[in-house]
Amino acid sequence: MRLCSQHRVPYFALSTGKNWGYGSASPARSGLAIDLGGMNQIRLYDDKLGYVRVEPGVTQAQLHGFLQARGGRFWLDATGSSPECSLVGNTLERGFGHTPYADHAAHASALEVVLPDGKVIETGFGAFGAVKAKHVYPPGLGPSLDGLFFQSSFGIITAMTIWLMPAPERTCAFFLALKSAEQYPALIEALRPLRLSGQLRSAIHLGNAYRVLPSFTQFPWDNLPEGGTLQGEALARLQQCHGVLAWHGSGALYGTAGEIREGRRALRRALRGLDVKLIFVDEGRLALLQRLQPLLARFGAGRLARQIDLLAPAYGLLHGRPTDRFLPTVYWRKRLPAPSQPDPDRDRCGLIWCAVLSELDGVQADAVQKIATDSLLGAGFEPAITTTFLSERCLEHVISISFDREVAGEDDKARHAFETLLNALLAEGYFPYRLPTFAQGLMDKAQGGYRQLLTTLKSAFDPGRLFADGRYTITNDSDPASPG
Amino acid sequence: MRLCSQHRVPYFALSTGKNWGYGSASPARSGLAIDLGGMNQIRLYDDKLGYVRVEPGVTQAQLHGFLQARGGRFWLDATGSSPECSLVGNTLERGFGHTPYADHAAHASALEVVLPDGKVIETGFGAFGAVKAKHVYPPGLGPSLDGLFFQSSFGIITAMTIWLMPAPERTCAFFLALKSAEQYPALIEALRPLRLSGQLRSAIHLGNAYRVLPSFTQFPWDNLPEGGTLQGEALARLQQCHGVLAWHGSGALYGTAGEIREGRRALRRALRGLDVKLIFVDEGRLALLQRLQPLLARFGAGRLARQIDLLAPAYGLLHGRPTDRFLPTVYWRKRLPAPSQPDPDRDRCGLIWCAVLSELDGVQADAVQKIATDSLLGAGFEPAITTTFLSERCLEHVISISFDREVAGEDDKARHAFETLLNALLAEGYFPYRLPTFAQGLMDKAQGGYRQLLTTLKSAFDPGRLFADGRYTITNDSDPASPG
Repeated sequence: MRLCSQHRVPYFALSTGKNWGYGSASPARSGLAIDLGGMNQIRLYDDKLGYVRVEPGVTQAQLHGFLQARGGRFWLDATGSSPECSLVGNTLERGFGHTPYADHAAHASALEVVLPDGKVIETGFGAFGAVKAKHVYPPGLGPSLDGLFFQSSFGIITAMTIWLMPAPERTCAFFLALKSAEQYPALIEALRPLRLSGQLRSAIHLGNAYRVLPSFTQFPWDNLPEGGTLQGEALARLQQCHGVLAWHGSGALYGTAGEIREGRRALRRALRGLDVKLIFVDEGRLALLQRLQPLLARFGAGRLARQIDLLAPAYGLLHGRPTDRFLPTVYWRKRLPAPSQPDPDRDRCGLIWCAVLSELDGVQADAVQKIATDSLLGAGFEPAITTTFLSERCLEHVISISFDREVAGEDDKARHAFETLLNALLAEGYFPYRLPTFAQGLMDKAQGGYRQLLTTLKSAFDPGRLFADGRYTITNDSDPASPG
Repeated sequence: MRLCSQHRVPYFALSTGKNWGYGSASPARSGLAIDLGGMNQIRLYDDKLGYVRVEPGVTQAQLHGFLQARGGRFWLDATGSSPECSLVGNTLERGFGHTPYADHAAHASALEVVLPDGKVIETGFGAFGAVKAKHVYPPGLGPSLDGLFFQSSFGIITAMTIWLMPAPERTCAFFLALKSAEQYPALIEALRPLRLSGQLRSAIHLGNAYRVLPSFTQFPWDNLPEGGTLQGEALARLQQCHGVLAWHGSGALYGTAGEIREGRRALRRALRGLDVKLIFVDEGRLALLQRLQPLLARFGAGRLARQIDLLAPAYGLLHGRPTDRFLPTVYWRKRLPAPSQPDPDRDRCGLIWCAVLSELDGVQADAVQKIATDSLLGAGFEPAITTTFLSERCLEHVISISFDREVAGEDDKARHAFETLLNALLAEGYFPYRLPTFAQGLMDKAQGGYRQLLTTLKSAFDPGRLFADGRYTITNDSDPASPG
């Protein structure tokens, strides 16, 4: 970094380069790439309070293996992306997973940062040397700088402490399926009190039919006219064929046997009155279903057998086990099926994620869903949506645009669709919490004083604007309203 | 603020000026005081997701009254300090209370900040205008600046959103009393798994005999030699007289009847093997005890009657009800009893709090406790200590130094005692999470790169160093180790 500064060479950093849906390994602007993948040490493991200190190259699979080898007393929170994704990279982008530790940034502390001037600092109490509480109390003393290093270009994070979830006494996963899309807002409202009170602590994920179908099949090229989108009758037929309803959901209950009994009762009570299928799956039931699966397949219940096939990885995610089972879904618009070793970048799978937030509110969630559906169908893509109960009060809606980068013109068409979608969402106050590398211009929509402040901060950290410039930075801080 | 900048007048801000134990209304350095007490609007109340937007003058009592008048569906988290304390002031100092929402800074979002240059910004999504999720997702988009405005001198916060705890279906408070001080580390260890797993979500508070006695009585001036401290036989007699054991604790279980039953069972099981008294108090039991109280007092069980007298406010704190019942404890070393309207500043009660953190670990907690006891008894003060289970992994130890500011020389003696105590704690890695206004020099112990960064940030926000300079700021950023 010192050399880059001396020679005024723009540069950026990447961990494992698997920021799929948001630009993969690509930077916001070109520059020298500092590949941190080789920094893959787990520097520390505290098996009493449950935390690890990891470098940027440590992957989900690596930490999972590490913890399993030590008795599995603690779990990581895994995302549904590749097991080979960097934990630090995902956390710095404010990614999330499936368990009560789903909000990754909220479970990280004690950043080790190399500043653009080459100095190394630790945030929080680490700045004060050997402080006993440094891994467990992020703010330390005085102003807390942690927030500055997430989604930013102020320094390279070379280590971070990640808190782990203690393996609960018991767990019970639940899966739900909603028949009618009309009941989606009512479903959100029904689950809200349980999430707000803390009785449901996992980040419940809901996915619409468009989001669930790619787990079973690909775009039906043979049955649709060139340039068409899947909808109406054709969609209904495909759903029918794979047993996919309007919305599917997953979550889990964690705790003692008694707490889980209470949670099941509360969940059943909350969903009463909705046309929803709810099943609970614990270790025993999963094993039984897996034993039944070959029989089902042999005796013609192939649809059910394939559903069971997806159950284990979904169940695993709710238990902190990374999986590559959902990676093939990004081959939705490819002409050939996903290979046994999927690699979306190598195989030129197009994927853009538009990830916006709303309050945990049925009306707001429904608005996002309707905007996304109208906008993307209008632009020629299937509106695949997941809605995640990110916290007690906040929903995250990830709208995927899947396309085939090998088809000429599709890149531009998808980007244009993304921009149209984003503008429609912004107009109603639904803002993204995370940006693809090509869409960073949105930062300039911040109000004047804030834009100027971010520019001032960027200059304070990186006067030459050499490090990752353009990534979550302001490009235009002039304020027409106050020329002074 | 613009005027102060123009005329180069140092200034600082205060909300209600009740930062007791840390300097009350006094600044780190003298300057013009901007009193925000008159900004006392509750700007917004969301009764669906449970949040309010408050100005710096809004007090604990005010918000409590406001919520009660609207049906009490949501609770604030109250501290044991005065009902007239500012919510914003306490939150900005990273204060904490008693319920699962105890960590106040972790439940705040969307700061409205007046910067030293006079510009007004909103942090998080508020910077982007009318964003639906602005109150429920603090980071917004890009780097998060919130942390910069806690314990700092970068701007004046004129509004903040505070999340409220949904009133649980049922609650059950618990109170515990530990006979032998030797079992204190074992008690911490016994409670750790319950707190780490989330089965216990309230910020359990433990207080030693020195901390609990002032709720019942004052320093026994008549029975101790001039300049003496309470210990040994005299301490034992006073404890006996008031039924005070080595450590007392309080906490609560929240949830459905079934969850509470589970929690009680788990707590009993965890404490088995310790010489500890554990009682559970719900609404019904509290009412019964309060009805019995006059009878007990009349028939000679005055000690028990007085204990019941304290039960209601302690129970109330676990239910988000502010109380002034614990304020008289700071009159411990005064010659006259606390008046009916206590005011520690007016009555010149000396109080210094040394608030350090450790991991949630019996050995570390015991070390803090031993250092505090040895150090303060050596310096001529009673070592009153509370240990709070602040989060899943972190303990907060507040060590109080109580004295009488009307006695000549006591101010200096107390400050000297504080410094000796702090140094002894620092030497073992136990660092404060919050500083009295007169002890801000500790910030200079940060490592070189971090000190320089804080100085750079201060200059970026406040080039003239006019606002609250000396409060959580660096005064010496030169680094002898790296002269370059």
